[in-house]
Amino acid sequence: MDEKIRIVVDAMGGDNAPEAPIHGAVDALAENNKIEITLVGRTPDIEAELAKYSYDKDRVHIVNAEDVIGFDEPPVEAIRKKKDSSIVVGMKLVKKGEADAFVSAGSTGAILVGGQLVVGRIRGIERAPLAPLIPTTDGVSLLIDCGANVDARASHLVQFAKMGSIYMENIVGIKNPRVAIVNIGAEEEKGNALVKETYPLLKECEDINFIGSIEARDIPKGGADVIVCEAFVGNVILKLYEGLGSALLHKVKEGLMSSLRSKIGALLIKPALKKTLKAFDASEHGGAPLLGLKGLVVKAHGSSSEVEIKTAILQCISFSEEGINDRIRENLKLD
Amino acid sequence: MDEKIRIVVDAMGGDNAPEAPIHGAVDALAENNKIEITLVGRTPDIEAELAKYSYDKDRVHIVNAEDVIGFDEPPVEAIRKKKDSSIVVGMKLVKKGEADAFVSAGSTGAILVGGQLVVGRIRGIERAPLAPLIPTTDGVSLLIDCGANVDARASHLVQFAKMGSIYMENIVGIKNPRVAIVNIGAEEEKGNALVKETYPLLKECEDINFIGSIEARDIPKGGADVIVCEAFVGNVILKLYEGLGSALLHKVKEGLMSSLRSKIGALLIKPALKKTLKAFDASEHGGAPLLGLKGLVVKAHGSSSEVEIKTAILQCISFSEEGINDRIRENLKLD
Repeated sequence: MDEKIRIVVDAMGGDNAPEAPIHGAVDALAENNKIEITLVGRTPDIEAELAKYSYDKDRVHIVNAEDVIGFDEPPVEAIRKKKDSSIVVGMKLVKKGEADAFVSAGSTGAILVGGQLVVGRIRGIERAPLAPLIPTTDGVSLLIDCGANVDARASHLVQFAKMGSIYMENIVGIKNPRVAIVNIGAEEEKGNALVKETYPLLKECEDINFIGSIEARDIPKGGADVIVCEAFVGNVILKLYEGLGSALLHKVKEGLMSSLRSKIGALLIKPALKKTLKAFDASEHGGAPLLGLKGLVVKAHGSSSEVEIKTAILQCISFSEEGINDRIRENLKLD
Repeated sequence: MDEKIRIVVDAMGGDNAPEAPIHGAVDALAENNKIEITLVGRTPDIEAELAKYSYDKDRVHIVNAEDVIGFDEPPVEAIRKKKDSSIVVGMKLVKKGEADAFVSAGSTGAILVGGQLVVGRIRGIERAPLAPLIPTTDGVSLLIDCGANVDARASHLVQFAKMGSIYMENIVGIKNPRVAIVNIGAEEEKGNALVKETYPLLKECEDINFIGSIEARDIPKGGADVIVCEAFVGNVILKLYEGLGSALLHKVKEGLMSSLRSKIGALLIKPALKKTLKAFDASEHGGAPLLGLKGLVVKAHGSSSEVEIKTAILQCISFSEEGINDRIRENLKLD
């Protein structure tokens, strides 16, 4: 029998826990038989929820964790004090090599801190960036770093570019992905101090396809496959994507209700419009991996439904199968 | 007879020059008789274009400038060398007090540099920020700074907050405008080094209505009236607004062409949709003032049509009438 890919799912993480994580886990098990899932959280809650479904019992394990880290808790303190929280217990399984990956829709801050403190970075990786896929007019791009390391240094951004490139090539399947740095103009001499320092370093990297600067205006058009930026800027981009999408949708709805003519039209276009806007929703594209750690940690959106949790779980399979961490070690000449 | 407000218009600036600036100037003259306009640029080109219209000749002047600064020229060098460019000649009129304001759709970089070097800052103002109005679901917000001063310091951001507040209150007419700083979380302890240093300083300001941090997701919802940020971040926000709006429009159009049902619906909703999306176009809200200079400098979008140029010109009237610069001097306790 083949060795299974062992994925830990935080049963208590996210706005819709424990329903969504458990439902998503059951669906992922049904869809792919290469995986084995460990649900971490309060055993009675997990058992009660699992009882609603039929599933392959041999591939599901429960590990008890009494505590839950809330969205409002200061992350460093929470990770240090709540040793029996689902995040800490789940991450420890990855740390000890008892699991390949950890998926959670819980507190971003706690997952970032836990990733660094509990799972730990690959030797030689200076910072572990959070790298969500964001939608573009012709596909998706990887936005790296998106909130993990504010005030990063140039050497960090160079590692992000390399790790992002490996991820896009091997997980998303983009050959020779175009890497660009977020800037306020296209020319090399433009930018703030960090970008000016990083640009020539990226230009020197032989192992990535660096295409130069990208202005924010060209990100939604798919101007690059790997969008490198400092975490503060990446966070602004990700959240503006979210906010602007929903504000526009709101305005469009309002506009469509403005006349009888447009009301009738609205009924006719509703299915097509919904599909389109869904494709452009940043939260739809699975979880965001925290790259450069000893095991894979995937952060799913806080409001994830079972579908997003399932996508995040299935994403871990190729990460593991493609040996992304070995590629990172080799490519970045670590160890 | 009342004293006129004297506005200089760069006849050579922007993608649609000289047609759009001159057409916009003529329309502004017709709409408001308090203004007098000086067109700066190549006299024969201006005269040929003006010949197409009928207008109040007493309120139009031409000042010749042989050179034009292109969009691709390095700004500092261009401003220093091209003394006879429409931007430098026009700004000198403001500097010498021969005009109240200068409007241009030309190179942003050259306008920013020219504003600082030719017009000059109000004594005590450390940096002059560019502050466009961006659309929100219920109106507009002022984004300050949007590209003028990367790597700004905390004391600069504090001045931006005060100037932005004065502008929103007196020009846009928002009573006691809510001022927020762009951040990656709502809590005071969140942020990068600059935000952490600036936040308590803003909190101490008695003359502004500081409401704390704003996450990028809440900007399109109108979460604050004055959005304070460092120029790199502001530029990313402004350009992503632009890029995401047009990418979504493209996807919606594509989606609507996907079935016969939606094609028919599309015909019915077209007028309403167009109006809605236009209201959400960042380039529609007139020009962006460069605040804190001895005279008013307004940067119109490079692709401005005559309508946007006219809006930018008319905007100068209230700036002048409300004595914004005197308010800035008084409020910021300068001189």
